[in-house]
Amino acid sequence: MSTLAAVEFANSAFYDAFSSANIDQMSDLWAEGAAVFCCHPGWQPIHGRDAVLRSWAEIFANAGPMPISHRVLARDLIGDMGIVCCLESVSGHGFIATNLFTRDGKIWRMVHHHAGPIAGRVPVVAASPGPAPN
Amino acid sequence: MSTLAAVEFANSAFYDAFSSANIDQMSDLWAEGAAVFCCHPGWQPIHGRDAVLRSWAEIFANAGPMPISHRVLARDLIGDMGIVCCLESVSGHGFIATNLFTRDGKIWRMVHHHAGPIAGRVPVVAASPGPAPN
Repeated sequence: MSTLAAVEFANSAFYDAFSSANIDQMSDLWAEGAAVFCCHPGWQPIHGRDAVLRSWAEIFANAGPMPISHRVLARDLIGDMGIVCCLESVSGHGFIATNLFTRDGKIWRMVHHHAGPIAGRVPVVAASPGPAPN
Repeated sequence: MSTLAAVEFANSAFYDAFSSANIDQMSDLWAEGAAVFCCHPGWQPIHGRDAVLRSWAEIFANAGPMPISHRVLARDLIGDMGIVCCLESVSGHGFIATNLFTRDGKIWRMVHHHAGPIAGRVPVVAASPGPAPN
Protein backbone atom coordinates (compact mmCIF):
# COMPACT_ATOMS: atom_id res chain seq x y z
CA MET A 1 0.00 0.00 0.00
CA SER A 2 1.41 3.40 -0.93
CA THR A 3 1.89 6.04 1.73
CA LEU A 4 -1.01 8.14 0.51
CA ALA A 5 -3.22 5.05 0.31
CA ALA A 6 -2.33 4.28 3.94
CA VAL A 7 -3.33 7.82 4.92
CA GLU A 8 -6.64 7.40 3.09
CA PHE A 9 -7.15 4.06 4.83
CA ALA A 10 -6.85 5.84 8.19
CA ASN A 11 -9.20 8.54 6.92
CA SER A 12 -11.79 5.90 5.98
CA ALA A 13 -11.41 4.28 9.42
CA PHE A 14 -12.26 7.66 10.94
CA TYR A 15 -15.53 7.84 9.01
CA ASP A 16 -16.32 4.22 9.87
CA ALA A 17 -15.94 5.00 13.57
CA PHE A 18 -17.91 8.25 13.19
CA SER A 19 -20.86 6.71 11.34
CA SER A 20 -21.06 3.66 13.62
CA ALA A 21 -20.64 5.77 16.79
CA ASN A 22 -17.84 3.42 17.85
CA ILE A 23 -15.90 5.20 20.58
CA ASP A 24 -13.35 2.39 20.94
CA GLN A 25 -12.45 2.59 17.25
CA MET A 26 -12.44 6.40 17.45
CA SER A 27 -10.12 6.26 20.46
CA ASP A 28 -7.78 3.84 18.71
CA LEU A 29 -7.34 5.97 15.62
CA TRP A 30 -6.49 9.25 17.38
CA ALA A 31 -2.82 9.76 18.18
CA GLU A 32 -1.55 9.45 21.71
CA GLY A 33 -0.26 12.64 23.32
CA ALA A 34 -1.72 16.02 24.06
CA ALA A 35 -1.09 17.74 20.72
CA VAL A 36 -4.33 16.84 18.98
CA PHE A 37 -7.15 19.17 17.97
CA CYS A 38 -10.75 18.80 16.90
CA CYS A 39 -13.02 21.53 15.51
CA HIS A 40 -16.57 20.20 15.28
CA PRO A 41 -18.84 22.38 13.15
CA GLY A 42 -19.68 25.54 15.05
CA TRP A 43 -17.83 24.46 18.20
CA GLN A 44 -14.79 26.07 19.73
CA PRO A 45 -11.62 24.05 19.01
CA ILE A 46 -10.97 21.18 21.41
CA HIS A 47 -7.34 20.63 22.37
CA GLY A 48 -5.89 17.46 23.82
CA ARG A 49 -6.62 13.78 23.36
CA ASP A 50 -8.80 13.33 26.45
CA ALA A 51 -11.00 16.34 25.69
CA VAL A 52 -11.30 15.35 22.02
CA LEU A 53 -12.40 11.82 22.89
CA ARG A 54 -14.88 13.12 25.45
CA SER A 55 -16.41 15.27 22.70
CA TRP A 56 -16.83 12.25 20.44
CA ALA A 57 -18.36 10.22 23.28
CA GLU A 58 -20.81 13.07 23.87
CA ILE A 59 -21.74 13.26 20.17
CA PHE A 60 -22.19 9.49 19.98
CA ALA A 61 -24.30 9.43 23.18
CA ASN A 62 -26.57 12.14 21.77
CA ALA A 63 -26.78 11.08 18.13
CA GLY A 64 -25.91 7.38 17.97
CA PRO A 65 -24.95 5.89 14.60
CA MET A 66 -25.45 8.35 11.74
CA PRO A 67 -25.66 8.07 7.96
CA ILE A 68 -22.33 9.54 6.90
CA SER A 69 -20.63 9.50 3.55
CA HIS A 70 -17.50 11.28 2.45
CA ARG A 71 -15.64 12.03 -0.73
CA VAL A 72 -11.93 12.79 -0.76
CA LEU A 73 -11.40 16.04 -2.65
CA ALA A 74 -7.65 16.39 -2.17
CA ARG A 75 -4.90 14.76 -0.17
CA ASP A 76 -1.17 15.10 0.11
CA LEU A 77 1.84 14.65 2.32
CA ILE A 78 3.38 17.69 4.02
CA GLY A 79 6.57 16.53 5.68
CA ASP A 80 5.58 13.72 8.02
CA MET A 81 1.94 14.76 8.02
CA GLY A 82 -0.82 13.31 5.85
CA ILE A 83 -3.61 15.75 5.03
CA VAL A 84 -6.98 14.79 3.56
CA CYS A 85 -9.67 17.31 2.58
CA CYS A 86 -13.12 15.75 2.27
CA LEU A 87 -16.65 16.60 1.39
CA GLU A 88 -18.82 15.06 4.12
CA SER A 89 -22.51 14.35 4.26
CA VAL A 90 -23.61 13.85 7.88
CA SER A 91 -27.30 13.10 8.31
CA GLY A 92 -27.90 15.00 5.07
CA HIS A 93 -25.89 18.09 6.03
CA GLY A 94 -22.83 18.99 3.96
CA PHE A 95 -19.45 19.88 5.41
CA ILE A 96 -15.89 20.43 4.27
CA ALA A 97 -13.41 18.64 6.51
CA THR A 98 -9.67 18.76 6.97
CA ASN A 99 -8.18 15.64 8.53
CA LEU A 100 -4.53 15.39 9.57
CA PHE A 101 -2.61 12.23 10.32
CA THR A 102 0.88 11.46 11.62
CA ARG A 103 2.75 8.21 11.27
CA ASP A 104 2.91 5.86 14.25
CA GLY A 105 5.04 2.97 12.99
CA LYS A 106 3.07 1.52 10.08
CA ILE A 107 -0.17 3.15 11.19
CA TRP A 108 -1.30 6.71 10.50
CA ARG A 109 -3.11 8.26 13.45
CA MET A 110 -5.37 11.31 13.48
CA VAL A 111 -4.09 14.50 15.07
CA HIS A 112 -6.66 16.98 13.78
CA HIS A 113 -10.20 17.10 12.44
CA HIS A 114 -11.86 20.34 11.39
CA ALA A 115 -15.31 20.29 9.77
CA GLY A 116 -17.19 23.39 8.68
CA PRO A 117 -20.54 23.69 6.93
CA ILE A 118 -20.80 24.33 3.21
CA ALA A 119 -22.53 27.58 2.29
CA GLY A 120 -25.57 27.37 0.04
CA ARG A 121 -26.80 24.21 -1.62
CA VAL A 122 -25.46 20.96 -0.21
CA PRO A 123 -23.84 18.94 -2.98
CA VAL A 124 -24.49 15.25 -3.39
CA VAL A 125 -21.75 13.22 -1.74
CA ALA A 126 -20.87 9.89 -3.20
CA ALA A 127 -18.96 7.71 -0.78
CA SER A 128 -15.28 7.45 -1.56
CA PRO A 129 -14.61 4.16 -3.33
CA GLY A 130 -11.50 3.61 -1.26
CA PRO A 131 -7.96 4.88 -1.36
CA ALA A 132 -6.95 6.39 -4.69
CA PRO A 133 -3.73 5.15 -6.28
CA ASN A 134 -0.69 7.16 -5.34
CA MET B 1 11.64 34.02 20.41
CA SER B 2 10.32 30.57 21.35
CA THR B 3 9.22 28.18 18.64
CA LEU B 4 5.55 28.60 19.45
CA ALA B 5 5.93 32.37 19.53
CA ALA B 6 7.51 32.20 16.06
CA VAL B 7 4.54 30.17 14.82
CA GLU B 8 2.15 32.75 16.29
CA PHE B 9 4.18 35.51 14.65
CA ALA B 10 3.61 33.83 11.27
CA ASN B 11 -0.06 33.44 12.15
CA SER B 12 -0.33 37.17 12.90
CA ALA B 13 1.41 37.97 9.61
CA PHE B 14 -1.28 35.94 7.84
CA TYR B 15 -4.05 38.06 9.38
CA ASP B 16 -2.13 41.26 8.60
CA ALA B 17 -1.95 40.24 4.93
CA PHE B 18 -5.61 39.16 4.94
CA SER B 19 -6.96 42.36 6.52
CA SER B 20 -4.84 44.64 4.36
CA ALA B 21 -5.56 42.67 1.17
CA ASN B 22 -1.83 42.54 0.53
CA ILE B 23 -1.26 39.79 -2.04
CA ASP B 24 2.54 40.18 -1.99
CA GLN B 25 2.65 39.60 1.77
CA MET B 26 0.16 36.74 1.44
CA SER B 27 2.30 35.17 -1.30
CA ASP B 28 5.44 35.50 0.79
CA LEU B 29 4.00 33.75 3.84
CA TRP B 30 2.65 30.66 2.04
CA ALA B 31 5.13 27.81 1.63
CA GLU B 32 6.68 27.03 -1.71
CA GLY B 33 5.69 23.73 -3.30
CA ALA B 34 2.44 22.15 -4.36
CA ALA B 35 1.39 20.58 -1.05
CA VAL B 36 -0.59 23.48 0.35
CA PHE B 37 -4.34 23.66 0.93
CA CYS B 38 -6.88 26.37 1.60
CA CYS B 39 -10.52 25.91 2.61
CA HIS B 40 -12.30 29.27 2.50
CA PRO B 41 -15.68 29.22 4.27
CA GLY B 42 -18.16 27.34 2.14
CA TRP B 43 -15.71 26.78 -0.73
CA GLN B 44 -14.35 23.50 -1.96
CA PRO B 45 -10.75 22.93 -0.80
CA ILE B 46 -8.11 24.55 -2.98
CA HIS B 47 -4.96 22.51 -3.49
CA GLY B 48 -1.60 23.83 -4.64
CA ARG B 49 0.24 27.09 -4.11
CA ASP B 50 -0.71 28.75 -7.42
CA ALA B 51 -4.43 28.00 -7.03
CA VAL B 52 -4.41 29.09 -3.38
CA LEU B 53 -2.78 32.42 -4.21
CA ARG B 54 -5.20 32.98 -7.11
CA SER B 55 -8.07 32.50 -4.63
CA TRP B 56 -6.64 35.14 -2.30
CA ALA B 57 -6.09 37.55 -5.21
CA GLU B 58 -9.73 37.02 -6.20
CA ILE B 59 -10.96 37.66 -2.64
CA PHE B 60 -8.80 40.79 -2.34
CA ALA B 61 -9.97 42.08 -5.74
CA ASN B 62 -13.60 41.63 -4.71
CA ALA B 63 -13.48 42.71 -1.08
CA GLY B 64 -10.38 44.90 -0.66
CA PRO B 65 -9.08 45.54 2.86
CA MET B 66 -11.40 44.15 5.53
CA PRO B 67 -11.82 44.68 9.27
CA ILE B 68 -10.43 41.40 10.64
CA SER B 69 -9.53 40.44 14.15
CA HIS B 70 -8.52 37.09 15.51
CA ARG B 71 -7.99 35.43 18.84
CA VAL B 72 -5.75 32.39 19.26
CA LEU B 73 -7.72 29.70 21.06
CA ALA B 74 -5.13 26.93 21.00
CA ARG B 75 -1.78 26.25 19.38
CA ASP B 76 0.78 23.50 19.53
CA LEU B 77 3.55 21.75 17.68
CA ILE B 78 2.88 18.40 16.05
CA GLY B 79 6.19 17.06 14.82
CA ASP B 80 7.58 19.72 12.50
CA MET B 81 4.19 21.36 12.04
CA GLY B 82 2.86 24.35 13.94
CA ILE B 83 -0.91 24.43 14.33
CA VAL B 84 -2.95 27.43 15.45
CA CYS B 85 -6.72 27.38 16.00
CA CYS B 86 -8.27 30.84 15.99
CA LEU B 87 -11.54 32.60 16.44
CA GLU B 88 -11.82 35.07 13.55
CA SER B 89 -14.07 38.04 13.02
CA VAL B 90 -14.13 38.98 9.32
CA SER B 91 -16.33 41.97 8.50
CA GLY B 92 -18.40 41.10 11.57
CA HIS B 93 -18.85 37.41 10.72
CA GLY B 94 -17.42 34.80 13.09
CA PHE B 95 -15.32 31.84 11.99
CA ILE B 96 -13.19 29.12 13.50
CA ALA B 97 -9.92 28.69 11.63
CA THR B 98 -7.17 26.11 11.61
CA ASN B 99 -3.83 27.39 10.35
CA LEU B 100 -0.85 25.11 9.75
CA PHE B 101 2.76 26.17 9.35
CA THR B 102 5.99 24.38 8.50
CA ARG B 103 9.49 25.57 9.19
CA ASP B 104 11.51 27.08 6.34
CA GLY B 105 14.84 27.87 7.95
CA LYS B 106 14.05 30.39 10.68
CA ILE B 107 10.69 31.29 9.15
CA TRP B 108 7.40 29.41 9.56
CA ARG B 109 5.37 29.33 6.36
CA MET B 110 1.69 28.54 5.95
CA VAL B 111 0.69 25.24 4.36
CA HIS B 112 -3.00 25.15 5.26
CA HIS B 113 -5.84 27.47 6.18
CA HIS B 114 -9.35 26.20 6.90
CA ALA B 115 -12.06 28.57 8.11
CA GLY B 116 -15.63 27.56 8.85
CA PRO B 117 -18.49 29.64 10.21
CA ILE B 118 -19.53 29.49 13.85
CA ALA B 119 -23.06 28.28 14.42
CA GLY B 120 -25.42 30.55 16.34
CA ARG B 121 -24.40 33.79 17.95
CA VAL B 122 -21.11 35.26 16.84
CA PRO B 123 -18.88 35.83 19.86
CA VAL B 124 -16.96 39.05 20.32
CA VAL B 125 -13.41 38.64 19.08
CA ALA B 126 -10.71 40.64 20.76
CA ALA B 127 -7.57 40.88 18.68
CA SER B 128 -4.78 38.67 19.90
CA PRO B 129 -2.29 40.78 21.83
CA GLY B 130 0.61 39.03 20.13
CA PRO B 131 2.40 35.73 20.59
CA ALA B 132 1.79 34.11 23.94
CA PRO B 133 4.79 32.98 25.96
CA ASN B 134 5.76 29.37 25.31
